[in-house]
Amino acid sequence: MSLFSLIFGSKPKTATIAKERLQLIIAHERSGQNTKPDFLPALQQELIAVISKYVLVNPDDIKVSLEKQGNYEVLEVNIVLPEPVSAR
Amino acid sequence: MSLFSLIFGSKPKTATIAKERLQLIIAHERSGQNTKPDFLPALQQELIAVISKYVLVNPDDIKVSLEKQGNYEVLEVNIVLPEPVSAR
Repeated sequence: MSLFSLIFGSKPKTATIAKERLQLIIAHERSGQNTKPDFLPALQQELIAVISKYVLVNPDDIKVSLEKQGNYEVLEVNIVLPEPVSAR
Repeated sequence: MSLFSLIFGSKPKTATIAKERLQLIIAHERSGQNTKPDFLPALQQELIAVISKYVLVNPDDIKVSLEKQGNYEVLEVNIVLPEPVSAR
């Protein structure tokens, strides 16, 4: 199963999309020898700042979740983008 | 099924990890009214630059794939990180 279908599942690809969305996922497999502090939280802030240079992002429309298990961690950032001005 | 298990699947969470890896996924659902040019390729370059501030990234160890279907697109960046100096 491709990553594409994992993320978008069986959504009809030509369906009219009500809200434009951007999903950012960072998955980190840490090797046991890595004793450096975790950088994902800081990286997350910077990545959202970079994204904001490309699209208008309302902080209230950003949902962040961080999941850790052993040497694995997944940071997920879901952003609902505002409707294009022409659509309003 | 959580995103965590989708990405890391059934890997034993305490397995010793040979190579440290970072996976960056950007999924974009474009609304039909959005006629702006695609920003993912440019965004990808900047995100890798931001990541390089946190971890040493060798350009040869970066694999990028972009998949588009209708209003949906997924950009995947897989980075194998160099072993920590203490481990060599």
